[in-house]
Amino acid sequence: MSKLVIVGTVAFDAIETPFGKTDKILGGAATFIGLAASQFDVDSAAVSIVGGDFPQEYLELLSNRNINIDGVEIVKEGKTFFWSGKYHNDMNTRDTLATELNVLADFNPDVPKAYRNADVVMLGNLHPMVQMSVLEQMESKPQLAILDTMNFWMDCALEDLHKVIAKIDVITINDEEARQLTGEYSLVVAARKIQELGPTYVVIKKGEHGALLFHENNMFYAPALPLEEVFDPTGAGDTFAGGFAGYLAKTEDYSFENMKNAVIYGSTLASFCVEKFGTERMQNLTSDEIDHRLKEFKQLTQFNIELS
Amino acid sequence: MSKLVIVGTVAFDAIETPFGKTDKILGGAATFIGLAASQFDVDSAAVSIVGGDFPQEYLELLSNRNINIDGVEIVKEGKTFFWSGKYHNDMNTRDTLATELNVLADFNPDVPKAYRNADVVMLGNLHPMVQMSVLEQMESKPQLAILDTMNFWMDCALEDLHKVIAKIDVITINDEEARQLTGEYSLVVAARKIQELGPTYVVIKKGEHGALLFHENNMFYAPALPLEEVFDPTGAGDTFAGGFAGYLAKTEDYSFENMKNAVIYGSTLASFCVEKFGTERMQNLTSDEIDHRLKEFKQLTQFNIELS
Repeated sequence: MSKLVIVGTVAFDAIETPFGKTDKILGGAATFIGLAASQFDVDSAAVSIVGGDFPQEYLELLSNRNINIDGVEIVKEGKTFFWSGKYHNDMNTRDTLATELNVLADFNPDVPKAYRNADVVMLGNLHPMVQMSVLEQMESKPQLAILDTMNFWMDCALEDLHKVIAKIDVITINDEEARQLTGEYSLVVAARKIQELGPTYVVIKKGEHGALLFHENNMFYAPALPLEEVFDPTGAGDTFAGGFAGYLAKTEDYSFENMKNAVIYGSTLASFCVEKFGTERMQNLTSDEIDHRLKEFKQLTQFNIELS
Repeated sequence: MSKLVIVGTVAFDAIETPFGKTDKILGGAATFIGLAASQFDVDSAAVSIVGGDFPQEYLELLSNRNINIDGVEIVKEGKTFFWSGKYHNDMNTRDTLATELNVLADFNPDVPKAYRNADVVMLGNLHPMVQMSVLEQMESKPQLAILDTMNFWMDCALEDLHKVIAKIDVITINDEEARQLTGEYSLVVAARKIQELGPTYVVIKKGEHGALLFHENNMFYAPALPLEEVFDPTGAGDTFAGGFAGYLAKTEDYSFENMKNAVIYGSTLASFCVEKFGTERMQNLTSDEIDHRLKEFKQLTQFNIELS
């Protein structure tokens, strides 16, 4: 069975949307990535940090999904990373109400020995030097290293970001961030410039407009499933990344053709994530539900023009 | 051979983009629709109005593409409709610099007798009562009536717009307009509400993000082909509509399954339109070029997940 290392935040989120608001609930990039990846038959390990205030039941929620949590450091006297945000009516924009780094400020990830030969490494959004540290701990070069990042690091740690981008195989990034990183408006041109920085594969996430996969001169486009209602977009990007990474780790096929399927799985899982607050929908998602939605994706995108 | 009636403006456009600017060049909804539809083996007629200032060579450009122009009224003492616009750097937004209605202010469309039994009627963006007048001139109910409209008519002629929407089979509308018409943010909900107004099929155009087709509980999504460079978006929506209408008229199959193909043809033709100023790219487009781009669309969207 393939091994997958997931590094990222395990956190508390408090979310307000036009549909309601939550108290502190389970959140964090590694949480969403892990829950999505756990839909696939892979041996995953989360590498993260939490405070003494983090409920045991949340940790069990992860380990019950066969996510190894030996690499989740618990700082008894510390507090868990906390993020709070409020979504606008269009659900595409949000205001950050609070960001309390807490224990994350001193996070030195420690990949468990048993996972230092992992096949796939998924670097969730964190300081680029923290991401780099995980890569450096790997005893053998992973088959695939995937990196997610955001504009914040382009603003305040661009040089470090360039260093880690040079080391990875796949980057997942949203459209505005791809434009910021390259200074190019066209996503086709931006993706080419990002490939020149290191990663052979570039995934550009466009939120409700889907995701684009670029590799050399090849492109693939997966729409987001149009939904009646987006309840809470928090974690959708991480869920996408988790589905993408989990599917590739399971199939052990890192070709462009198979990455198309991985993008579809990522989009499919993300379409569930947004249906409820936080991780709620992802906690009890069944494989039948996933199969049914994959069929909807197929109907949504497949057509039958015969070409000579 | 199927007959296709196209009503819309035949006009002068002056366009400014980050790549350059034009003098008065050939434009207008019926022009773009007609040029796109002329890629298919159909008997098309344009119904429009121009002034005495309109060059004979522009009319010949249409008739040379086998578009019947008996329904294009020439008002010798009048001036042709003129639109001028300037696109912003993102190419998704533009300022209208001038709109001179001229002869369009008194346009009473007159569908040539030979086309009053047309199979397909494509109502380009115009005052809803002008669109209605064309429908009323038809001697037999067309197999398919398609309507394009815009927010301007929602602002100033909503009641008339509702009347004509109730009479047609397919509406093409952009995402913001669909939201304005229904007061719903979710495009899935908006499309359902629009279907309740009359049209069985709803096409929502999302510009660089592609187009969605809705019919009962079915959805289909065609991306826009990601391009290195969008040179001039003018006419892309009309070109989409012309490809859509032309393909359906040629194939005489008005099912949802075939409309998927029509949406792909529309998107394909629109992807050429934006490569040059105005109608330039559409004037010399070959079927080989179209076939090649259809293959690119297939590669862009088709995947191979086996489902049980």
